[in-house]
Amino acid sequence: MSATATATATATATATATATHRIPVGVIGLGNLGQALAEAFLTQGHPVTVWNRSAGKADRLVERGASLAATPTDAVAAGELVVVAVLDYDTVGELLRPAAGVLAGRTIVNLTTGTPSAARALGAWATDQRAAYLDGAVYAVPQTIGTSAAFVLYSGDEAAYRSYRAVLDTIGEGSLVGPAPELSSVYDTALLSGMYGMFAGFFQAVAFAGTEGIGAAELTRPLVRWLTAAADALPAFAEEIDAKDYTTTTSNLEINAVGLRNILSATEAQGLQTDLLAPLLRLFEDQIRAGHAASSLARAVESLRADGV
Amino acid sequence: MSATATATATATATATATATHRIPVGVIGLGNLGQALAEAFLTQGHPVTVWNRSAGKADRLVERGASLAATPTDAVAAGELVVVAVLDYDTVGELLRPAAGVLAGRTIVNLTTGTPSAARALGAWATDQRAAYLDGAVYAVPQTIGTSAAFVLYSGDEAAYRSYRAVLDTIGEGSLVGPAPELSSVYDTALLSGMYGMFAGFFQAVAFAGTEGIGAAELTRPLVRWLTAAADALPAFAEEIDAKDYTTTTSNLEINAVGLRNILSATEAQGLQTDLLAPLLRLFEDQIRAGHAASSLARAVESLRADGV
Ligand SMILES: NC(=O)c1ccc[n+]([C@@H]2O[C@H](COP(=O)([O-])OP(=O)(O)OC[C@H]3O[C@@H](n4cnc5c(N)ncnc54)[C@H](OP(=O)(O)O)[C@@H]3O)[C@@H](O)[C@H]2O)c1
Ligand SMILES: NC(=O)c1ccc[n+]([C@@H]2O[C@H](COP(=O)([O-])OP(=O)(O)OC[C@H]3O[C@@H](n4cnc5c(N)ncnc54)[C@H](OP(=O)(O)O)[C@@H]3O)[C@@H](O)[C@H]2O)c1
Repeated sequence: MSATATATATATATATATATHRIPVGVIGLGNLGQALAEAFLTQGHPVTVWNRSAGKADRLVERGASLAATPTDAVAAGELVVVAVLDYDTVGELLRPAAGVLAGRTIVNLTTGTPSAARALGAWATDQRAAYLDGAVYAVPQTIGTSAAFVLYSGDEAAYRSYRAVLDTIGEGSLVGPAPELSSVYDTALLSGMYGMFAGFFQAVAFAGTEGIGAAELTRPLVRWLTAAADALPAFAEEIDAKDYTTTTSNLEINAVGLRNILSATEAQGLQTDLLAPLLRLFEDQIRAGHAASSLARAVESLRADGV
Repeated sequence: MSATATATATATATATATATHRIPVGVIGLGNLGQALAEAFLTQGHPVTVWNRSAGKADRLVERGASLAATPTDAVAAGELVVVAVLDYDTVGELLRPAAGVLAGRTIVNLTTGTPSAARALGAWATDQRAAYLDGAVYAVPQTIGTSAAFVLYSGDEAAYRSYRAVLDTIGEGSLVGPAPELSSVYDTALLSGMYGMFAGFFQAVAFAGTEGIGAAELTRPLVRWLTAAADALPAFAEEIDAKDYTTTTSNLEINAVGLRNILSATEAQGLQTDLLAPLLRLFEDQIRAGHAASSLARAVESLRADGV
């Protein structure tokens, strides 16, 4: 973004924040996430103007004191900070383009999930309109927005981030991962890959246990305990990966290949498909074929890398 | 198992436990897990006799006071409780078959990972030898054995479990999931499916972030935080699944399909394979095609079920 636009956005923010700590916020998109965001801003006493394609979703927020904008452009114009959470980046673009004339000096915080390249393009466009741009990835479900369980990774305009940090921390603990607008989307792609892997494992676990008459809730008690413990093992894997030192006394590729083969055959024996987990066995087997049976399980990542060892 | 065998095993256990609380334990298999188990029993003051195919792995344990058995049969004969942790169930069978003559009245605790059908067969065979049989699934890494982070699900002979509970709790907090020998293996197949899903997601996350210059340790900090938070959302999914009520205000299938498609396309754009996560998208799309775009993400499990709705 241009130095002038940064200066304008920062000056406006600082003035208002210093005066009252109440920042006019526009919220575009009142889906599951957007409604929770608007509520969190209202709870903190900020003046909130909302817009949603289906207007009905604004009713509860209007009762709580939000203003209803007739168009996305009106919501942008009413906000010093404009928060967007809709279906995808194409939709963000469609909604913001007509507002180009009122964007200058405002800060756009796009919390819609997308790809790094889409974030880069939207950031460049916003900068061209002399708006400050922040891309953000929300790690929360709507029910945990505003609680200590929620956190948000932002990237983009650092001055704008500092100016609005207090308002943004209403959503959850924020941090700025870097100045490139697409960086939060890079992290997000990685973190959501991790989450979807876990969800895939969860669905597989529930489906398998169900064939043996074990209910989902009954299974989920020990499962969550184990997943939480296994997540605690990931930093040790990460160290091995960064050091490319896969010597282990924890759990080797051979024993995990045997274990995973057992899972796949037990799954098949119950008449269930195995394609959610079978590709992981191929990574293990690639590494074992290359002579690494006694190496750490973490070495499997090398089979995913273009330049894997 | 026969009533007589149960009575014998229980009587022996109770007498010894009451007398000294020191139980002679045989440990067969001194891999990463077996060594940690033997150490935990030694730390609690139990007389431990160990056997491993490669004898060198016993050295450190013998220094700490363990006896080294010349054969698996000697390790069985020395133990009132016999704990086995080797490569697979075929190996367990090969090692225990020659010990058939000394099994009567002892309790076998098999902590080797396998399939439910293999556990059922081994349990039946042990019972025929008038041994009490417990199958167990250990949720720990060797480094957390004996700590409050470790837990173990057992199934099989309830009287033997009660008799040896105090010794077994040395490994980690135990619970008996039921009398059928294969039940712990059913749980284990499900819990490890969950874990391998999470690991697959982790590898995918690390590989993707690596293409953008983000190191594994740097990524893993927010990733573990997010996976831990996302694991906390699983009990709510489990409730929806048990109730088959997929109404949601949390996160619907449509938004997740869009998100996962973005991940797959960003992953491909970095020249990485997508087959670890692509099958999950097919579950989402199956459900969306069936008219459930606004339903909870948890509904994806129905596409894995033979009788899915
Ligand atoms: N839910 C979560 O827990 C969560 C967490 C982190 C990030 N996110 C991200 O936040 C974004 C929104 O998620 P959500 O859960 O709130 O989704 P959602 O409940 O499905 O809401 C989607 C929103 O997008 C709007 N929309 C869709 N197509 C549109 C169009 N063509 N023009 C205008 N508006 C349109 C919808 O308007 P209508 O009401 O008119 O349909 C609705 O406001 C997604 O990128 C998601 O990945 C969500
Ligand atoms: N490591 C963990 O964190 C963990 C956690 C839960 C459950 N488990 C389960 O515990 C079991 C053992 O795992 P581990 O990590 O200890 O594996 P490991 O370190 O690879 O050890 C394998 C053990 O099996 C023995 N073995 C292999 N083939 C044999 C044969 N033909 N005859 C006799 N012994 C043989 C090995 O003897 P040598 O020393 O002679 O090779 C070694 O003692 C597996 O079923 C695993 O899934 C492990």
